[in-house]
Amino acid sequence: MKDGTRAKLAQVSTATLTTVLFKRGFRNVFLALSPLAPEAPRLVGPAYTLRTIPAREDLDGLDVFKDPAHPQRRGVEECPPGAVFVIDSRGDARAASAGGILITRLKARGVAGAITDGGFRDSPEIAAMGWPAYHARPSAPTNLIHHHCVDLNVPVACAGVGVHPGDIMVGDGEGVVCIPAQIADEVAEEAFEQTVFEDFVQERVAAGHTIRGLYPMTDPANRPIYEAWRKAMGR
Amino acid sequence: MKDGTRAKLAQVSTATLTTVLFKRGFRNVFLALSPLAPEAPRLVGPAYTLRTIPAREDLDGLDVFKDPAHPQRRGVEECPPGAVFVIDSRGDARAASAGGILITRLKARGVAGAITDGGFRDSPEIAAMGWPAYHARPSAPTNLIHHHCVDLNVPVACAGVGVHPGDIMVGDGEGVVCIPAQIADEVAEEAFEQTVFEDFVQERVAAGHTIRGLYPMTDPANRPIYEAWRKAMGR
Amino acid sequence: MKDGTRAKLAQVSTATLTTVLFKRGFRNVFLALSPLAPEAPRLVGPAYTLRTIPAREDLDGLDVFKDPAHPQRRGVEECPPGAVFVIDSRGDARAASAGGILITRLKARGVAGAITDGGFRDSPEIAAMGWPAYHARPSAPTNLIHHHCVDLNVPVACAGVGVHPGDIMVGDGEGVVCIPAQIADEVAEEAFEQTVFEDFVQERVAAGHTIRGLYPMTDPANRPIYEAWRKAMGR
Amino acid sequence: MKDGTRAKLAQVSTATLTTVLFKRGFRNVFLALSPLAPEAPRLVGPAYTLRTIPAREDLDGLDVFKDPAHPQRRGVEECPPGAVFVIDSRGDARAASAGGILITRLKARGVAGAITDGGFRDSPEIAAMGWPAYHARPSAPTNLIHHHCVDLNVPVACAGVGVHPGDIMVGDGEGVVCIPAQIADEVAEEAFEQTVFEDFVQERVAAGHTIRGLYPMTDPANRPIYEAWRKAMGR
Amino acid sequence: MKDGTRAKLAQVSTATLTTVLFKRGFRNVFLALSPLAPEAPRLVGPAYTLRTIPAREDLDGLDVFKDPAHPQRRGVEECPPGAVFVIDSRGDARAASAGGILITRLKARGVAGAITDGGFRDSPEIAAMGWPAYHARPSAPTNLIHHHCVDLNVPVACAGVGVHPGDIMVGDGEGVVCIPAQIADEVAEEAFEQTVFEDFVQERVAAGHTIRGLYPMTDPANRPIYEAWRKAMGR
Amino acid sequence: MKDGTRAKLAQVSTATLTTVLFKRGFRNVFLALSPLAPEAPRLVGPAYTLRTIPAREDLDGLDVFKDPAHPQRRGVEECPPGAVFVIDSRGDARAASAGGILITRLKARGVAGAITDGGFRDSPEIAAMGWPAYHARPSAPTNLIHHHCVDLNVPVACAGVGVHPGDIMVGDGEGVVCIPAQIADEVAEEAFEQTVFEDFVQERVAAGHTIRGLYPMTDPANRPIYEAWRKAMGR
Repeated sequence: MKDGTRAKLAQVSTATLTTVLFKRGFRNVFLALSPLAPEAPRLVGPAYTLRTIPAREDLDGLDVFKDPAHPQRRGVEECPPGAVFVIDSRGDARAASAGGILITRLKARGVAGAITDGGFRDSPEIAAMGWPAYHARPSAPTNLIHHHCVDLNVPVACAGVGVHPGDIMVGDGEGVVCIPAQIADEVAEEAFEQTVFEDFVQERVAAGHTIRGLYPMTDPANRPIYEAWRKAMGR
Repeated sequence: MKDGTRAKLAQVSTATLTTVLFKRGFRNVFLALSPLAPEAPRLVGPAYTLRTIPAREDLDGLDVFKDPAHPQRRGVEECPPGAVFVIDSRGDARAASAGGILITRLKARGVAGAITDGGFRDSPEIAAMGWPAYHARPSAPTNLIHHHCVDLNVPVACAGVGVHPGDIMVGDGEGVVCIPAQIADEVAEEAFEQTVFEDFVQERVAAGHTIRGLYPMTDPANRPIYEAWRKAMGR
Repeated sequence: MKDGTRAKLAQVSTATLTTVLFKRGFRNVFLALSPLAPEAPRLVGPAYTLRTIPAREDLDGLDVFKDPAHPQRRGVEECPPGAVFVIDSRGDARAASAGGILITRLKARGVAGAITDGGFRDSPEIAAMGWPAYHARPSAPTNLIHHHCVDLNVPVACAGVGVHPGDIMVGDGEGVVCIPAQIADEVAEEAFEQTVFEDFVQERVAAGHTIRGLYPMTDPANRPIYEAWRKAMGR
Repeated sequence: MKDGTRAKLAQVSTATLTTVLFKRGFRNVFLALSPLAPEAPRLVGPAYTLRTIPAREDLDGLDVFKDPAHPQRRGVEECPPGAVFVIDSRGDARAASAGGILITRLKARGVAGAITDGGFRDSPEIAAMGWPAYHARPSAPTNLIHHHCVDLNVPVACAGVGVHPGDIMVGDGEGVVCIPAQIADEVAEEAFEQTVFEDFVQERVAAGHTIRGLYPMTDPANRPIYEAWRKAMGR
Repeated sequence: MKDGTRAKLAQVSTATLTTVLFKRGFRNVFLALSPLAPEAPRLVGPAYTLRTIPAREDLDGLDVFKDPAHPQRRGVEECPPGAVFVIDSRGDARAASAGGILITRLKARGVAGAITDGGFRDSPEIAAMGWPAYHARPSAPTNLIHHHCVDLNVPVACAGVGVHPGDIMVGDGEGVVCIPAQIADEVAEEAFEQTVFEDFVQERVAAGHTIRGLYPMTDPANRPIYEAWRKAMGR
Repeated sequence: MKDGTRAKLAQVSTATLTTVLFKRGFRNVFLALSPLAPEAPRLVGPAYTLRTIPAREDLDGLDVFKDPAHPQRRGVEECPPGAVFVIDSRGDARAASAGGILITRLKARGVAGAITDGGFRDSPEIAAMGWPAYHARPSAPTNLIHHHCVDLNVPVACAGVGVHPGDIMVGDGEGVVCIPAQIADEVAEEAFEQTVFEDFVQERVAAGHTIRGLYPMTDPANRPIYEAWRKAMGR
């Protein structure tokens, strides 16, 4: 990411990002997951992934966590600060993907956020942290019951979206968007511009203006009004 | 609707309405959708519908919105004040049914509320408007990805319920009920009476009274108590 | 339950309980249901069950509630104080499992909480009671549309878990755990101990400590620190 | 059942039965399950039920089958000849409801058929028996993994339909209908009449006749043709 | 459709058609429905649609069929010979979309086939007709229980695909493809060519040839072999 | 696998294997997938896996197949003879996992079978090959629409089961079982013994014997009868 891209992405919505990506031909970039703390800061950062497969009784006993090389535990210690910890839980929330202590560790280490298409346990405690975490629903059972962690930082599926390590994840109160790494800068730029325009439209419409000719701006008479507004707003 | 029906419906719950409709033989009138703003005023108004089918790549590019006759955009401008904008999204929340700007326009135009069995985008902004909107879940992606708007104000399916233009939609914190237009007045009347009775029962039960003989009122001894209470409450 | 077990269970999370039960070989004890009032007190108590099957039009008219022997109405009057009213709704939330008046009666009678794998109606009112109730989602329609109540206090299925009368139900903000009756005391004991340890770990990790060697505690150097902390905390 | 009812029911389709039941107000009587042997004889007989709940690891080990009182094993020995063995598997086909040996025993004992809303194991062998068995899909895993058998011959849910002991189950290549016991005779009678009429209609339509006026028979000119046909066919 | 297009489409598979449509940017053209008679002739013809919404008890009694203007009954009489009768059943197979007599009438009238994303009743009889009909699964209950027929020959959703009147429906043993009307000729042409090529590849691979360089044909050495084969086969 | 294990596994059912694995604590080993050719030979062989994630429009165009290193194409050429090609399609059958030509190549190369938890295209042709292939349902659309192939021969999820390279896959008319590699020999041995016993039981029960005391064999009087039968049968 270029300088400034992270800041721009923190000011645009996932809705706007999906439109910008749709213009480039991307139709499947939204992870319909819920923020545990809707009032947490925006989530922005490159994906660092953990992959799971269904657990097996002989491989997934409580002792596995004694091994510091266990992928979940290693990932929690090695996910780079500023990155987003993305867990492919195969959409299975019958057991937890991680819990309060690991999330606390990720937060303490400066990781930008955590995402699973399963569920987190200790979810009330995680919600209280005010840190960006997204899941499908709360799930108390220990992950060993259904999840076997296999590897770190490989391309994964999460909530039906392909997530490649380094892709830029952006989350707001609505869910998460995955932006392919190589276009993150241009997408951030265009989404930022689009946001300024939509703020203008929103203000006009709230004041009683019709959407006709304004959204999209097919009436050229709206152009100078927009430009004046933008100047006035210093944006 | 007769004078007073709207006011009565604004004071009864969807739960009570389903019971009154069940007495008349209606078993499938509840749309299990979530209010974006649970503290918004009750939703009451006749249905004005938008119908969609799955999108097609050659028909549903971003340019379609430049056409003022596009059904979604036209509907947002033409839905009558006081009506409820009901979108048949075929239960598909993979893409948005509408977003913050269109909802703002509907609100500004005096429309009573909006309902989709898909999802709204910009849902945190919509939630903050304190206006009655209901959906299945938040959905950021632009509607063009999955929804092709076909027509306005025809009978539709929404959340598994048949909704005919003019049917009276009533929503509370629990979801939405669709009342067939021709019986809305009598249903409102009976639900209002039933609500007074249930308020009495609720008060008695909270005070420790058994439900036996009271709910339903099979013990005639409860009758004068109820009548006295009602008089005292001025209802 | 032994003296003290209820108090201990009120201080442990469902997440911790699933781990303690997993150690004993139990993999399917979590009911993934939502609390209507997330800030309500913890739910703890033995299960008292109501079983339903799909309704039939000739058996399930509004008159059935006039019969005081109707299992739902009888159950609401007979569920012992301190017990938890567990309704097997076959995971069907298309119609309500119960509503505000019955929940008010249960609360007034000193019942500890209510659980259904369907939905409650009058859910905003129930949520406002601050009493522990759990369901899959709100559901306004009267139960008669889809539920026929058959019997009380037999083993049932609820949210995919087998619940036997007397099993100890524990609920927090995440959902509900069902503890087999005969091991409730020992599970409470171990979960309580585990909670003290995890509180310690949580505090250390929040302060920047790695999870390596600490969680699980494979590094013996952490042992005296824990013991000192525990002494200091008076736990 | 009256004499002759079983024979009549063996000649009518589940489709016709649902229409006859719909006329009497019954809307939910069809179990959408697949016959393992589509060419097997029609299934007709009164329901004898087995109820299950989710298994529990301490209750459902392989040893349970050593107990002759285990409800599944007892049910297989006690289900009356001519009855239909209906298993409430809670719609869960992750583990088998029963397998080839038990089905062989039921068949040998003169039971009329078997139904589960889960799955049978050894399904290719069962299919080869040419005996009426219905399930949701094949399922190899032993029932102990997910099913705990609780009781026999109580009202149950099966495939979303309430089945009371003694209700008359009728199955054809399309699925199964549950007829409330007390109306089985009149339903059989009317369905038999309806079948004769539809056979006539089918023949006429195959020969090129319009359905208008014929189906339903709103044109009285068709009446004598039908009567003549019926006489000629000796029905 | 141009002359010859129907014949070409009758010789290509739905798999090949999806690839040809994918090249043109169409990603959602396949209706994953099952043929009732897998050995029936290929289905080819323009769509003629019937739209339904959820039934309502006061609108959908058995008497509605006495009205020759009822959309289902009118559609069955008016669907043009050679066309395909496509029913939008909202993916709801709890009640039938149509049954044996109506299908017989469609067949007798020269209609090319029938499709529903719900279920047909009398499905064993329909299967025996050897006529192209597709559905999700068998469904005995009368359509009135869940389906209210609203209009004919409007754009509809079927099995998650947008179907516009006149679109060319092609079905084989695998399911159905919907080809936008305006490109049907060119798609038929290209699919036909592709089929000849794939027949060649299939033959070579069955004889032991690697797919490398052959499929796709990146090795130019395969070109003259293909051309010779094609000449020899007279295709 | 030891000599003889493959032969033994070809004679036991998936039902019997799940029981033998359950005794060893394995509860989740069955892939509920359908054989395309139910009359094909038993599937037996070690797993060789292909992993997919959701497709992305810029990565998954038709050109990717020109690259001989594309994992799907490479896997089809490199899967060892005698192995089973297992595709993790994330349970997504909206697009094909592979089609007739690739399956033909696998068969020609001596691969033992193919499994996907998505769908195969050209499924009628594959079914006609009489070769063991299993999927969730037919799916015509080209895999590029939804599947991006990532790597070969890593642990994967398939139909909700963890499959590690080298695990022994066994399929019959009911579905597929995955046997952990290290216990395949002992499981084959025990399942073979169990099969002999169940054949005996089946024969006895078909002849009218009760299951009591016989299945399981709690009555020691049955022991010598079994031993005599086994001797007589030469098994």
